[in-house]
Amino acid sequence: MRYALRVACGFCLSVAAIASLVGAACADALPSWNDGRSKAAIINFVTAVTSEGDARFVPVGERMAVFDNDGTLWSEQPAYFQLTFALDRINALAPQHPEWKGQEPFKSILAGDFEGMAATGEKGAVELIMASHAGTTTDEFTAVVKDWFATARHPRFDRPYNEIIFQPMVELLEYLRANGFRTYIVSGGGIEFMRPMTESMYGIPPAQVVGSSIVTRYELDGDTPVLRREAEFDFIDDGPGKPVGINTFIGARPIFVAGNSDGDYEMMRWVTAGEGPRFGLIVHHTDAEREWAYDRKSSFGKLDKALTEAAQRGWLVVDMKADWRKVFPFDK
Amino acid sequence: MRYALRVACGFCLSVAAIASLVGAACADALPSWNDGRSKAAIINFVTAVTSEGDARFVPVGERMAVFDNDGTLWSEQPAYFQLTFALDRINALAPQHPEWKGQEPFKSILAGDFEGMAATGEKGAVELIMASHAGTTTDEFTAVVKDWFATARHPRFDRPYNEIIFQPMVELLEYLRANGFRTYIVSGGGIEFMRPMTESMYGIPPAQVVGSSIVTRYELDGDTPVLRREAEFDFIDDGPGKPVGINTFIGARPIFVAGNSDGDYEMMRWVTAGEGPRFGLIVHHTDAEREWAYDRKSSFGKLDKALTEAAQRGWLVVDMKADWRKVFPFDK
Repeated sequence: MRYALRVACGFCLSVAAIASLVGAACADALPSWNDGRSKAAIINFVTAVTSEGDARFVPVGERMAVFDNDGTLWSEQPAYFQLTFALDRINALAPQHPEWKGQEPFKSILAGDFEGMAATGEKGAVELIMASHAGTTTDEFTAVVKDWFATARHPRFDRPYNEIIFQPMVELLEYLRANGFRTYIVSGGGIEFMRPMTESMYGIPPAQVVGSSIVTRYELDGDTPVLRREAEFDFIDDGPGKPVGINTFIGARPIFVAGNSDGDYEMMRWVTAGEGPRFGLIVHHTDAEREWAYDRKSSFGKLDKALTEAAQRGWLVVDMKADWRKVFPFDK
Repeated sequence: MRYALRVACGFCLSVAAIASLVGAACADALPSWNDGRSKAAIINFVTAVTSEGDARFVPVGERMAVFDNDGTLWSEQPAYFQLTFALDRINALAPQHPEWKGQEPFKSILAGDFEGMAATGEKGAVELIMASHAGTTTDEFTAVVKDWFATARHPRFDRPYNEIIFQPMVELLEYLRANGFRTYIVSGGGIEFMRPMTESMYGIPPAQVVGSSIVTRYELDGDTPVLRREAEFDFIDDGPGKPVGINTFIGARPIFVAGNSDGDYEMMRWVTAGEGPRFGLIVHHTDAEREWAYDRKSSFGKLDKALTEAAQRGWLVVDMKADWRKVFPFDK
């Protein structure tokens, strides 16, 4: 049988490989989760929707799960990673822009004056995003992003940013996929900032990443077609934009959603309001020792309304400190 | 082995089913294509990119194929199917809009005066699209679309529109998928007009359909979250918009592209300009007897620039009359 599959039409299906993957997922699919209410709730849900004959059974094609990124799959402290990327990029581009020395928000950024930068408000934020993210082709921007991840290091953990990810959530993604789910990211972060990295970090390919975007435009560079990134917002995939992004990119309503902030509130409402079994999960940052502890008052990842309504909506609130045996892959 | 896979984690993988699928694809994967240059070119390309060791081998994850819809997968004569849908919808909604009797373009549409409708120009076209496509929730619009496909009939063939599809192209989609390709639609048509139908027609799920869109907005209907379709254009997935749509939705450059009109020109340039093996295919409508014959002068699906440049760009021009044994699934 295996030989027959291997030669057929050049499409190689290794049955042994599939079996070993599925088998591996069964031993303990969530080893970084402590036994308790949260882990049990996840396993109960997945077992139900994958058990033919169960009233809650869901066919494979409808098993879709959406995950926020900042604060849900990776850390968002002391600042959104993409903000740090933007500031690094301004510093890298500064030699080509001598005029920035006298021009906000760049003047403050180059001086390391973050209060000054913050004082430039939304106008400054937009100029920062556009100056750091536009003006290249899509291929060039991908190379810039990959280079940043290869060189920048997180200030607290002194490791590359792509290692500052939550091991229990990576296991949850793998567990869902092993059970026939298609896993998506739905993030307020930039779609082209995430896509070069998500497959290696989370096993999520570019087409399954939904995010905010700036306008890209097709043009010919000589006779070569390129897509150029323009200094204009296209889509903001945050708050009420998240269910819109899900509808646009996925075209179906997922049955599982994970988030950590009020920016995920509407997405959680939209997903869990669907008919049939639904699962909503909130990562509550309660662990100042291993990661950070914050919720209702945080400037990054404020969690207030969604936390207040979690019980009423039937959403699971994961207590990072109590529920997670490990936080990061590099934790002992 | 089969038993072990079936019980593992509730994720059912039927090895026998996979083998039978792959086996079926091998007998003659393209039975509705006549033997000849076109069929051979397709098979040669697919064989090369799926043969490990071949210089042109492409890993499974990078095997992506994009297909235009109107005129490439289904007919676009005597008018775009979605235009007929829009006109039918205006007639269905007319009793709720008595004011339309004195208001263009509706007055002309309701009178069956298509010259009068055409005379209202772009302004009329926009009003027609918005009146027929906006103002509902996404779920309601999906139901309207499904109902139209269940009841409307093509004027020439007297069959439902979802049967007016090109059997050789359906076989090509299946052949590519059997060889590890992921198949996408990238169409100027409305994304939410296509998605309810593409899985049953072509085996392409909603998440793999890229198309034009109007704005949708999240809101609460009482306490129930809904997405409402607004009378505002969001994205036009045609011409230079097609490579933009590919980049936004897929986040990678496909290696296979099929189109039939100048609206596909930039997409064909973008896909076939990538490094490594690439395949560009143009469906040339040359068969007035079984379908239609048109190209450089047609008002729907004009094929001029792309036809002129096909040889220079290395694109295969499929001659519908000579290359296709069958056109529609219902042909003898």
